[in-house]
Amino acid sequence: MNRDSLVEQILSKSSYLCVGLDTDIQKIPRHLLETEDPLFEFNKAIIEATSDLCVAYKPNLAFYESMGSAGLRSLEKTMAIIPSTHFTIADAKRGDIGNTSALYARAFFSAMDFDAITVAPYMGSDSVKPFLGFPGKWVVLLALTSNPGAADFQIENMSDGVPLYESVMRKAMEWAGPEELMFVCGATRASQFEHLRNIAPESFFLVPGVGAQGGDLRAISNAGLNSICGLLVNSSRQIIYASSGHDFAEAARSEALKVQEEMSILLSERGL
Amino acid sequence: MNRDSLVEQILSKSSYLCVGLDTDIQKIPRHLLETEDPLFEFNKAIIEATSDLCVAYKPNLAFYESMGSAGLRSLEKTMAIIPSTHFTIADAKRGDIGNTSALYARAFFSAMDFDAITVAPYMGSDSVKPFLGFPGKWVVLLALTSNPGAADFQIENMSDGVPLYESVMRKAMEWAGPEELMFVCGATRASQFEHLRNIAPESFFLVPGVGAQGGDLRAISNAGLNSICGLLVNSSRQIIYASSGHDFAEAARSEALKVQEEMSILLSERGL
Repeated sequence: MNRDSLVEQILSKSSYLCVGLDTDIQKIPRHLLETEDPLFEFNKAIIEATSDLCVAYKPNLAFYESMGSAGLRSLEKTMAIIPSTHFTIADAKRGDIGNTSALYARAFFSAMDFDAITVAPYMGSDSVKPFLGFPGKWVVLLALTSNPGAADFQIENMSDGVPLYESVMRKAMEWAGPEELMFVCGATRASQFEHLRNIAPESFFLVPGVGAQGGDLRAISNAGLNSICGLLVNSSRQIIYASSGHDFAEAARSEALKVQEEMSILLSERGL
Repeated sequence: MNRDSLVEQILSKSSYLCVGLDTDIQKIPRHLLETEDPLFEFNKAIIEATSDLCVAYKPNLAFYESMGSAGLRSLEKTMAIIPSTHFTIADAKRGDIGNTSALYARAFFSAMDFDAITVAPYMGSDSVKPFLGFPGKWVVLLALTSNPGAADFQIENMSDGVPLYESVMRKAMEWAGPEELMFVCGATRASQFEHLRNIAPESFFLVPGVGAQGGDLRAISNAGLNSICGLLVNSSRQIIYASSGHDFAEAARSEALKVQEEMSILLSERGL
């Protein structure tokens, strides 16, 4: 999905919500365990209940890989039912030497037809570039993550007064433009959002950490929205585990609706 | 596998060779494509031909994931036939927020029973620590990788005169001891091996880049061997793709034997 189509989806739905499909066999409603493919049945219900309220879905690969090849099969089936109107992000945080990154690109962009993949920057340019240059496909590069450990290297490693996350963003912008490169910018760090937006005024940011991790949607939106929105805010646990009973899909819809309604107000305040 | 057992394997075989099972459907001998599970058949033949010459096998997950759930199934079958005397490394370069890293640990340590997993350090302590504390299981943390892009951040990002890869190693050694933490140190950077060994005198280093990537076994061994060996040197393409014909397994054995014989000399020069 290219940038124009993504922006069009956002404006038509008044939503920049991404629903994180962090589907954990140990957390989904018990009654689903009796079905043949519990992860898929859960995802199917969540997608049907939320698709008009969100613009993107982001399965985190760990939840599927932890179930072995059967889990990956559940993910393949999930990908097949996500409407083509929705932007899909493989939250895989991959990154390897060039010929190997190229294989991951094949796995996620071709075999599974994701629109985007999260990539870890530690190994540098030739680990990231194999994911670039696929029309309509995106790299979502880790910049400033939402977890406490982000401080260890991303923030505390200062080179000439510039923290590592900023060096990563500036260097990556030499490799690719904002039509195929996004950054992961954690919502738990709202105070840094103004600075993040100054570094990359035109880029989309994928923002995890709203909801269960404590991020504040209004604060990050005020600092992070740009003229084309420029944000995809992810919420996983708060939405998909809103209820552990038979009403889990309705409860997820209700939580997603709350977020979408707030996003609608925030967008209209910006004239979007 | 614990450290003592690993050292015992190395000394009894006079080998610190790790064979990288980077099994690419586009590179394996054509005649295997007629079998039901070509990746598995290739791996099985390579393992049978090399197991007495190496102490470890390292499948890179990208090669299996690029084949979807079927590829992961081939990997599961491969893991089931690697002898328990061999150290197994999931070259996955994972790293995510805490609860998600814990799932990757479950996937690789429990479900697939790997001895070790390669982990990317960018997200800091809480992305690495969930992989620690499993008896006999190891984190192999990316420090200085073998690809050209390693220069971008690992080397060029200097904080108070200390390159990022060194900050990563020093901080990680606060999180775990040398009985469950190894470092990836690329063989294409033999000139830095003396410094790497000074930073972490007791740690095992997993050394990719010998062979196809151009690393020099004698140079890195002279600088990197410690009193218990302390090295696992990986070779992938040079061994497993030594021939593309029906004799691929014999050719792989022949290449592995050359490496093992050189290792035997290098070890005995150290009195090991």
